[in-house]
Amino acid sequence: MSDSRKVSRRTFVTSAMSAAAISSLPAQPVFAGINNASSPSAMHQVAVALTDSPSWKDQGIENLAKSPYAKLHDIPVRAVTIPSGFWAGRREINVSKSIPTMHDLLEANGRMNNFRRLVGKSNAKQIGPVFSDSDPYKWTEAVGFVLQSGDRPELRAVTEKMINEIVAVQEPSGYLNTYYQNDRIPERMTPQTQSTGHELYCLGHMLQAAIAYYRGTGDRKLLDAGIRFVNDFLIPNYGPAPKKPIVSGHPEIELALIELYRITGDRRQLDLAGYVLQGDERATFPERRTIYMFSGTPFTARTQLQGHAVRAMYACCGATDYYLETGDPAYWKTLTILWEDLSQRQMYISGGVGARAEGEAFGEAYELPNARAYGESCAAIGNMMWNWRMLAASGDAKHADIIERALYNGINSGMSLDGTLYCYRNPLAFDPSGGDKIRNEWYDVTCCPPNLERTFASLPGYFYSNSSDGIYLHLYNDSELNWHLESGTGLKVTQKTNYPWDGRVDINVAPAQPSEFTFHLRIPGWAEGAQVSVNNKSISDVKPGQYLAIQRKWSSGDVIRLQMEMPPQVIQANPRVIDDAGRVAVQRGPLVYCLEELDQPEGVSLVNVALDLANTPSETFQSQLQTDLLGGVVVLRHVGRAYENDTNARALYSGYSGVQTKSRRIPLTFIPYYAWANRQATSMQVWTPLYKA
Amino acid sequence: MSDSRKVSRRTFVTSAMSAAAISSLPAQPVFAGINNASSPSAMHQVAVALTDSPSWKDQGIENLAKSPYAKLHDIPVRAVTIPSGFWAGRREINVSKSIPTMHDLLEANGRMNNFRRLVGKSNAKQIGPVFSDSDPYKWTEAVGFVLQSGDRPELRAVTEKMINEIVAVQEPSGYLNTYYQNDRIPERMTPQTQSTGHELYCLGHMLQAAIAYYRGTGDRKLLDAGIRFVNDFLIPNYGPAPKKPIVSGHPEIELALIELYRITGDRRQLDLAGYVLQGDERATFPERRTIYMFSGTPFTARTQLQGHAVRAMYACCGATDYYLETGDPAYWKTLTILWEDLSQRQMYISGGVGARAEGEAFGEAYELPNARAYGESCAAIGNMMWNWRMLAASGDAKHADIIERALYNGINSGMSLDGTLYCYRNPLAFDPSGGDKIRNEWYDVTCCPPNLERTFASLPGYFYSNSSDGIYLHLYNDSELNWHLESGTGLKVTQKTNYPWDGRVDINVAPAQPSEFTFHLRIPGWAEGAQVSVNNKSISDVKPGQYLAIQRKWSSGDVIRLQMEMPPQVIQANPRVIDDAGRVAVQRGPLVYCLEELDQPEGVSLVNVALDLANTPSETFQSQLQTDLLGGVVVLRHVGRAYENDTNARALYSGYSGVQTKSRRIPLTFIPYYAWANRQATSMQVWTPLYKA
Repeated sequence: MSDSRKVSRRTFVTSAMSAAAISSLPAQPVFAGINNASSPSAMHQVAVALTDSPSWKDQGIENLAKSPYAKLHDIPVRAVTIPSGFWAGRREINVSKSIPTMHDLLEANGRMNNFRRLVGKSNAKQIGPVFSDSDPYKWTEAVGFVLQSGDRPELRAVTEKMINEIVAVQEPSGYLNTYYQNDRIPERMTPQTQSTGHELYCLGHMLQAAIAYYRGTGDRKLLDAGIRFVNDFLIPNYGPAPKKPIVSGHPEIELALIELYRITGDRRQLDLAGYVLQGDERATFPERRTIYMFSGTPFTARTQLQGHAVRAMYACCGATDYYLETGDPAYWKTLTILWEDLSQRQMYISGGVGARAEGEAFGEAYELPNARAYGESCAAIGNMMWNWRMLAASGDAKHADIIERALYNGINSGMSLDGTLYCYRNPLAFDPSGGDKIRNEWYDVTCCPPNLERTFASLPGYFYSNSSDGIYLHLYNDSELNWHLESGTGLKVTQKTNYPWDGRVDINVAPAQPSEFTFHLRIPGWAEGAQVSVNNKSISDVKPGQYLAIQRKWSSGDVIRLQMEMPPQVIQANPRVIDDAGRVAVQRGPLVYCLEELDQPEGVSLVNVALDLANTPSETFQSQLQTDLLGGVVVLRHVGRAYENDTNARALYSGYSGVQTKSRRIPLTFIPYYAWANRQATSMQVWTPLYKA
Repeated sequence: MSDSRKVSRRTFVTSAMSAAAISSLPAQPVFAGINNASSPSAMHQVAVALTDSPSWKDQGIENLAKSPYAKLHDIPVRAVTIPSGFWAGRREINVSKSIPTMHDLLEANGRMNNFRRLVGKSNAKQIGPVFSDSDPYKWTEAVGFVLQSGDRPELRAVTEKMINEIVAVQEPSGYLNTYYQNDRIPERMTPQTQSTGHELYCLGHMLQAAIAYYRGTGDRKLLDAGIRFVNDFLIPNYGPAPKKPIVSGHPEIELALIELYRITGDRRQLDLAGYVLQGDERATFPERRTIYMFSGTPFTARTQLQGHAVRAMYACCGATDYYLETGDPAYWKTLTILWEDLSQRQMYISGGVGARAEGEAFGEAYELPNARAYGESCAAIGNMMWNWRMLAASGDAKHADIIERALYNGINSGMSLDGTLYCYRNPLAFDPSGGDKIRNEWYDVTCCPPNLERTFASLPGYFYSNSSDGIYLHLYNDSELNWHLESGTGLKVTQKTNYPWDGRVDINVAPAQPSEFTFHLRIPGWAEGAQVSVNNKSISDVKPGQYLAIQRKWSSGDVIRLQMEMPPQVIQANPRVIDDAGRVAVQRGPLVYCLEELDQPEGVSLVNVALDLANTPSETFQSQLQTDLLGGVVVLRHVGRAYENDTNARALYSGYSGVQTKSRRIPLTFIPYYAWANRQATSMQVWTPLYKA
């Protein structure tokens, strides 16, 4: 075997590949996952064994198989199929509409010509912001995840062409970035450039793309290019003295380097991530800048979330990854402090984060404006990614609650129902009279669209985790898991459910042979009164916000039934959230609801609307499945109040007259927040005042 | 006289002064104001007559004597003295503390070395932002206004030195700007540079400084330099084709050029302002940029306030000045539309404007966040300046109401009570736990401090206006007017009052001889039930928000008594102001009040406080003069409510439980908003929820 591996390596060693890159491939024995039977189609198929990790086909969103401080371990995206239900349609549109149209837009906006230009295949000028290379990388990552769910030859061919065009511009040194060319060459890789120049950010996304594509296809071309950039260019020249300093101007490289380490086993990559997370005293910046970057100073000295929200979330991802590999308690302490800040003071009910448009940043504690909410799609995704890592480290269901909250609301809102328009910001209230167009097919800073695409493409990888004692179920949807326990025993789990519209989930558990293990079933934090039975026998002690650990000898044919009531829930915010004071939101299951003005009686302005909780129960909220609306949603009907204010005629300031007490009863209709702004422009709000008689 | 003028002109013609500059001095007869008796002390004293305008000593903040569309005409700053009362102390601190310390800070921060460097007197590098020259200009303008209230030899000597250093760097062409030197020379005066480069902005402030200093001293040195810049450099080369295009990247030049025209009578200066206000089709910018600049497209095509608030306010000032000279109805139409937008949708109760930190900009209609309010001091000043011009054009008291609102609140808050610290932004709610330091002695963009200084220094000029039928009284304070009617009849008006703490104003009207004219007495919009008597004889039909026109034969010894009740008034905002929904503000007279947490019972968080309007009247609000607090203020006492929330322990989101209904009665103390943040860091808020039992 050792011989064949030596031969196989040569099949992907390109002429530009250096000895250093080859030496990065450790010679440990291959870990053979049980699902490793089928052959990859690419010519690089025989070259995948790099360390004692699972094969490329057996690696999850994160490859935590050997991460010493991971309690939970990802299962591969391909291990879960989602044939129908809520996420099936979304994912199908993602592949059939979003990803193809985004490819065309990347071309139309010159993102690939930036590469072609450097090899004489285009006369177009360099175009787009400094980080434009990350756009095709993120798109490629999305494709990589799609291919992890099954081959798509046409899509793969297009992507392979793109990858060839990318690696064609890699310099002999390993450097690859289309922006720092010609008179910008002197700007390369200085800490000052790094603080705004996104070279490491682009490399991070290149690595993530390379890894996802490798895990989807076994094709190492882009991965090897990434390894060359890291091992030939970065590691020999940059790092602690006497090497040259670098700084993570936009965190991303940290998590990417650690994921690369999880493939190569090359400890230097992990160490470089640790170095970047700590900052380098030789590269100093004004405090304002290190706050904005959420980097440049030791991660472990942070005590609150601040600065650019996406940067902060990605930094927290990288730091959690670092903890998963090292168990450094200083990192865990900081991560728990920051997570507390996130969940108790900085997060929208949608799971969105980053209140301020200015600096795309976190605001003060409890600063969560609604109409002005920034809530960048990328930041909500970063929130989900971070909580995924925290969940792996802790097994604590509170992280899964946030993953679900962000996924179903603040992330899902980011893509139009037809899959062709994207939100950059995701406000919780909206007035179209300002002329703001909230959904667009393209942004010059087009980070969010491919980020949404990769998230939906990777979704099956978030459904389950392995653990030493069994399996964790995190997300509900019609789906089938074909995988195995860590003991090696094959395991099939089938979910049947109409979640999130209905709270019943039937789960068939079918181990290859009868086995004693624990099935950790997530009970969402919102699911008061949830009931669980196994083979019709009720289980006690079901607690919302925890994993219900069902330890028994499981056999094929066993059925878990999870029954969650889904009454519309009226939610209040901490009074310190000034913007929600006197207001409530409505949630049903994992879905946050909103009012769109066009669904309300004609002439009623959302400004004048209030909820009335003193109604008879039948008038309070009625859930109603409406299959013809917004792709099929459960709407909520409520008899509320409309104050009789002529708001347009009223002076901006006037003596208090208590006029708001005159009101009339009106029917109100709520739709899920994620589906807003998919019809004509209209006002929207999540938080609505309460009527007091 | 004609001969002596020819001679005198030579006394200030410097070697660099061109024929073009000389030709700009028209040869019309001198208009002799009645107060023109005393001699100016400068050597340039004999050279002041430029047009048939009032002499330098007789010109007000604006010289509207010959403006055909001005209904009201400014009176000179020096015509009003303010010996005691509310503004006397503020103005004294402005002269004795603010202006001297700001001079030292300008020096310490290299603003004058920028000039010295160019004549070999400093080796320091060019320092500060692109518009740094405007800092000494604005400071000089403040001094100019101080000197209009009486000579201050030391201050004048320091300023003369500064002026000499400024004019020393003027190039033979007339150009003067320390930033565009050496390799930046090619960037000079291109539309692209103008859009961000502030050359015209700096020239505008140079002209305003020159004019104020000229009106304070008769010294024309800086004024002549400004005229050379305009007449030798700007007018011959820039303007409509075939001249080169320019654009007002930060409006300011428009109002300055028109004020210069009001001195020189040189119509080309007015025309250039009109050209700039209309934009030049040869210099096009993205819409986003023209919105931000509030220029670059025809002013008369604007339909709403948007973009950078200070830019918008200065543009509106310039446009109103243009209307005052031309009567162009398209301008007036646009100005009234924009003013409606300002007063009905875009202004804080403090008179502050510009809701967003991002772009220092106006937000959407009714977007008036409190904690995040930007409300830049300069923008509130711009608001006052614009309304001053609108008042001159219309004589409508609604403009005086906004002047008073901005002056007493959103402007006055901008300078600490000791005169050494300044607010850049003026929020209406504040939580110090975010670490924001709201008052600072210096900002690298130090526009606000000297702007506040010039405003307080110019204040006497805002007290009265002349009109063809008599005199207008706008602002109340102990004061003495020594001036004349437009008929030439000398007039002395003395105000005795403890305003704004007390609503009684005793006004002695003493014309030099008994004369028939109208005394237009402003009745503030807030002054319901105001009573007016003349010589103890009550006058009927006193209407708040109007000028009470008292037409009679006035004789020395006549006394007007204005009696305004000052009950604390509870103010509500239009329901479309989401951030004020369910909340009220408290105002007394012209002063907006706020709560500072340190004045409330220990342990009570402002987050949990509500006002209780169901109290017995004696508990609702009690006004109490507290001479030992904050320089002497009337505080308001109120028995309100504190909700018993443990806001720190409470989850960010939780099921609605109505816990806010548990509350207890507590005494609350309000202070005037302008005086906030003058003690230790503490929370503050203007808008407070109402308690509903």
